[in-house]
Amino acid sequence: MARIVMKFGGTSMAGIERIRNVARRVKKEVEAGNQVAVVVSAMAGETDRLVGFCREASSLYDTREYDVVVASGEQVTSGLLAITLQSLGVPARSWLGWQLPIRTTDAHASARISTIDTEAMLASLANGEVAVVPGFQGLTEEGRVTTLGRGGSDTSAVAVAAAMKADRCDIYTDVDGVYTTDPRIVPRARKIEKITYEEMLELASVGAKVLQTRSVGLAMKEKVRVRVLSSLRDPDEDVTDAGTYVVGEEEIEEQSVERQLITGIAYDRNEAKITLVNVPDKPGAVSSIFTPLADASINVDMIVQNVSHGTGSTDVTFTVPGAELARSLDVLEKAREQIGYATMTHDTKVAKVSVVGVGMRSHAGVAAMMFQALAQRGINIQAITTSEIKVSVLIEEDYVELAVRVLHTAYGLDAEDEAA
Amino acid sequence: MARIVMKFGGTSMAGIERIRNVARRVKKEVEAGNQVAVVVSAMAGETDRLVGFCREASSLYDTREYDVVVASGEQVTSGLLAITLQSLGVPARSWLGWQLPIRTTDAHASARISTIDTEAMLASLANGEVAVVPGFQGLTEEGRVTTLGRGGSDTSAVAVAAAMKADRCDIYTDVDGVYTTDPRIVPRARKIEKITYEEMLELASVGAKVLQTRSVGLAMKEKVRVRVLSSLRDPDEDVTDAGTYVVGEEEIEEQSVERQLITGIAYDRNEAKITLVNVPDKPGAVSSIFTPLADASINVDMIVQNVSHGTGSTDVTFTVPGAELARSLDVLEKAREQIGYATMTHDTKVAKVSVVGVGMRSHAGVAAMMFQALAQRGINIQAITTSEIKVSVLIEEDYVELAVRVLHTAYGLDAEDEAA
Repeated sequence: MARIVMKFGGTSMAGIERIRNVARRVKKEVEAGNQVAVVVSAMAGETDRLVGFCREASSLYDTREYDVVVASGEQVTSGLLAITLQSLGVPARSWLGWQLPIRTTDAHASARISTIDTEAMLASLANGEVAVVPGFQGLTEEGRVTTLGRGGSDTSAVAVAAAMKADRCDIYTDVDGVYTTDPRIVPRARKIEKITYEEMLELASVGAKVLQTRSVGLAMKEKVRVRVLSSLRDPDEDVTDAGTYVVGEEEIEEQSVERQLITGIAYDRNEAKITLVNVPDKPGAVSSIFTPLADASINVDMIVQNVSHGTGSTDVTFTVPGAELARSLDVLEKAREQIGYATMTHDTKVAKVSVVGVGMRSHAGVAAMMFQALAQRGINIQAITTSEIKVSVLIEEDYVELAVRVLHTAYGLDAEDEAA
Repeated sequence: MARIVMKFGGTSMAGIERIRNVARRVKKEVEAGNQVAVVVSAMAGETDRLVGFCREASSLYDTREYDVVVASGEQVTSGLLAITLQSLGVPARSWLGWQLPIRTTDAHASARISTIDTEAMLASLANGEVAVVPGFQGLTEEGRVTTLGRGGSDTSAVAVAAAMKADRCDIYTDVDGVYTTDPRIVPRARKIEKITYEEMLELASVGAKVLQTRSVGLAMKEKVRVRVLSSLRDPDEDVTDAGTYVVGEEEIEEQSVERQLITGIAYDRNEAKITLVNVPDKPGAVSSIFTPLADASINVDMIVQNVSHGTGSTDVTFTVPGAELARSLDVLEKAREQIGYATMTHDTKVAKVSVVGVGMRSHAGVAAMMFQALAQRGINIQAITTSEIKVSVLIEEDYVELAVRVLHTAYGLDAEDEAA
């Protein structure tokens, strides 16, 4: 017997017919002798509808009341899944965020889970009942409803799995696992069987939208074995070997003596590049650029400071999320005098390509191989950032598919057959 | 300063534009110096949508989970009204059923309110905040979500008004008060300024769908002054003298020395008549008819037992709600042998017309006047029931408008001008 958490997203919960498929899949795990808690999202489109109401009511809505409104979507699907499970002969009940409770911080609309009381739920599981828990929602110490921010249901699932010491947390989504890169760009991309939390974090944050970043960070901290697998299969199919496991590094090293150098390649088109020309080359200049951006909660990613031209001034280039470009330009325009730059240019026709792998810790030359492979195809690198397990480059957006394909081959990731 | 409860139904809450009108009306009461709690329904159509999901999930749904699903509709409108009030500069917060809490019995899907803890809410009101409370929902002792049954939000409003000792409970609806009869049938129907709880109960149960019957019963028990008024007026209009007050008899007698004999006339087309021919005229025969119907939770209304024909058998005629006719015929068909009737006939082309008024307690001849007025127009009476303040007759459905008009004139209820 295993204790497992199964998480289903909005597409899987969109309508009773799909909820019935979810219930059949849950039933299969129950019949295999497992204790099961299911974490569910709202029906696809429902959260958008509710958020739309709040925005229409007030552009400056009270996030405490916004949380009351939007948390209702997961309440509905929780009750409906419990009813559907019962109709298949599987005892089940819903446990709302305030019923368990799932305690969170009081940062409404983007709360963080602090503790989950699973005592009553575990007693129910021991009695053979399936627990259905709405994702996304929680309760403050003061007793008010909170939500975790968009995509928070993955985090709910991992947190529930940690609290109930689950053997694994299966995240059902619309892809059948994590791939070495986007199969739409590289048909020979391979599904990864096991990936470390660190690698998944890097891949998640650079554009592979499989798992919410926060949920991976939490899984790493709490050592929750996560599996990503497809919800689109036949509900009765055996999924024992399906999907991609996201686990600790030790579990992977045990099994594969020869690690891949690189685990995956990600890309992100939603970057925008800003260049400030002729910034005074003196102490405090860089700080005067990035402090106002930080104050405006704008995340700056890649930063390149050119060598001084011998004129006492330098050019500074950096990237921000594309959605923050207009706000960033506004902030920098207002700080122009203080920073003292001559002109400001920007470019949205850029993309970031990243190679990720814990293997590069013990191997030199990963970055060099990347630059060489791109140079051979005439792809110009505009900026570079690195972390312990990642190298990212900024390139012209038109080259992004070519770059991904070149790197996928260069690092030996191509499968023999095309991805299904 | 007064302490008031305002209740708005689904039509008033259908969309942000209408919720904004509700908020303007609430603001007006706040600006008049009142402490205000608002009880809201779900958006029109939303509860039907949610009930539809439950039915689609299972024809035999668990009512505990049904309650989780359908209670969400009022949660949404509560949060949205709080946001909208704030956007108009009126401090407000929502108090969900489990937050106050509103304790109910555990009869899921048709729970009854037992207690409401208003301490925290009253502290909030004293701080100048408007309290927004979702109607229809509550919490069992065990901590599970309940709902009060369809139309339960009126009852929530009256219960909240009782618990917070409100000076009045204003029920905003799509009519501007209670009329002496349906103005669509009698253009000279008059709006009633004050009506007793008992009269309202009788009118509500015979077809005037202004207030939910249970809410009137609760208002009577808890002595809550209820007012029914229109939500369709300009939100900024002065409503001090608007609508119909539903109050204790003593408040009416104080003011009007000469009571009307009859307060209102109601009708109900949703009756069906069943006749059992040649039922054995012996002890226990009637019981053998009505016991199986009661066991099937079918409410029998008017009963007529004809005099024995001297043949040792009699005919028994009674009415049931039209929606229960098929089930009633089925029950009686199965009990045929036990009852021992010869044949069974039924008729849905019947209607019940009722005259209601506390004035008839002290006046003889009310029923006689009714029979006489109907007879003069050739309207045949098929059955009669009476209570202390009501006389009802069953007639052929085609005559219902004529009967209502005749009686409205006969009891002197016609206004000089037509109703607006």
